[in-house]
Amino acid sequence: MIRLEDAKKIIEAAEVKAKEIGQPMNIAVADAGGNLIAHVRMDGAWLGSIDISIKKAFTSRAFDISTKDLGDNSQPGQQFYGIHASNDGKVMIFAGGIPLKKDGQVVGAIGVSGGSGEQDHAVAEAGVAAF
Amino acid sequence: MIRLEDAKKIIEAAEVKAKEIGQPMNIAVADAGGNLIAHVRMDGAWLGSIDISIKKAFTSRAFDISTKDLGDNSQPGQQFYGIHASNDGKVMIFAGGIPLKKDGQVVGAIGVSGGSGEQDHAVAEAGVAAF
Amino acid sequence: MIRLEDAKKIIEAAEVKAKEIGQPMNIAVADAGGNLIAHVRMDGAWLGSIDISIKKAFTSRAFDISTKDLGDNSQPGQQFYGIHASNDGKVMIFAGGIPLKKDGQVVGAIGVSGGSGEQDHAVAEAGVAAF
Amino acid sequence: MIRLEDAKKIIEAAEVKAKEIGQPMNIAVADAGGNLIAHVRMDGAWLGSIDISIKKAFTSRAFDISTKDLGDNSQPGQQFYGIHASNDGKVMIFAGGIPLKKDGQVVGAIGVSGGSGEQDHAVAEAGVAAF
Repeated sequence: MIRLEDAKKIIEAAEVKAKEIGQPMNIAVADAGGNLIAHVRMDGAWLGSIDISIKKAFTSRAFDISTKDLGDNSQPGQQFYGIHASNDGKVMIFAGGIPLKKDGQVVGAIGVSGGSGEQDHAVAEAGVAAF
Repeated sequence: MIRLEDAKKIIEAAEVKAKEIGQPMNIAVADAGGNLIAHVRMDGAWLGSIDISIKKAFTSRAFDISTKDLGDNSQPGQQFYGIHASNDGKVMIFAGGIPLKKDGQVVGAIGVSGGSGEQDHAVAEAGVAAF
Repeated sequence: MIRLEDAKKIIEAAEVKAKEIGQPMNIAVADAGGNLIAHVRMDGAWLGSIDISIKKAFTSRAFDISTKDLGDNSQPGQQFYGIHASNDGKVMIFAGGIPLKKDGQVVGAIGVSGGSGEQDHAVAEAGVAAF
Repeated sequence: MIRLEDAKKIIEAAEVKAKEIGQPMNIAVADAGGNLIAHVRMDGAWLGSIDISIKKAFTSRAFDISTKDLGDNSQPGQQFYGIHASNDGKVMIFAGGIPLKKDGQVVGAIGVSGGSGEQDHAVAEAGVAAF
């Protein structure tokens, strides 16, 4: 179980990384049920990324996979192509979402949006490392 | 303009109040455009209130009014009855959302959900007082 | 048929009335198909009323009635109670929408939102008078 | 901040360009919060483009980028592929939306829809030039 206290630590670590690379981000943490625990939008971060960060966290927990890897499997011709149309539009298939694990079990996820796919993923990794 | 730093202070003050009354809450802060800046779900708070807290913040900014007062005007027979069907279901017409003002101007709003209407409103007021 | 030129005149007249009563408004004009021709949000008007003004115009044309009158028929216990749940949430049942007629035929509608029901209706009437 | 007066000037300039190229357009202007300030549908313009023009304006502000450039990044295999499924379907990933800047800051956006991608973008550029 991820407590709010944990989520705040994860988000803070992600914020530090985002500042380091100089790209303001939206950062969200979801619990084992895929439900939002906490979200922040750093000053100057994209408005359109509020929704995306929250949905990346949902997606990563929903399929226990990073959205980067899910994205690879969701391109035209790939096995999960079309999955973004499921779950009432809550499935994000590009980098920035990573599962949070405890003792090998997925107990939630972080979702980051606000820069390039590479930047989003790197900031999400920084959040995961703080868990 | 409300910065993330401000939003965190508002949310922290609201959390303190929620703990004081012994009811875990979802707390959200929106900016002048009605867009989410930050959200927290306290441990044990209702899942269904994630969405409600965010939408109460939106609603309070969207109509520059507390959702408590908007609710009074939105009862059957009142002038805004039916407003909850507008804005694609984002309008909440019960207590817990309050505008955030700077120099008399509404610059955002707080939305709180997780207890009785009275509790939600009290926690929102504590957040407003910290701004 | 309402041309864009007509819609602009209608909106301008409504803007004049809104300034006169000192309440900034959202004003929308829809055509015979219920589809938006033009919309303006006056400086300082409620964000939540963008959607409402457009939907009031739609509603007035959709049922060839003012939303004020439709509202009277849509209260609990009345014949159309529940109609606000139809049309994917596009039906507004409070004052501010009025049909636009040519030779006794409804050819479109105006929708106004941003103040009290009385104010919205008065501003809509000013728009209708300019057609 | 974009005032209604500014939005009208932007739209008028876009209308002039649309007439010049002989293609009626839907033209929308959004503010810094991504919220609609004004919209017009020129006589004969596509009905389906009402929604698209408004959403192109939203998208351009939401990600501080032209929808043309966002579109390039959102093709299959690119870093933002799947972004069109986010934000409840409000993200448009084809040409016609351009941010509006003041002193280097994005303060809103214009969205144009009604012709080819090239035409939409050209008309949007004419609107931007009038700001």
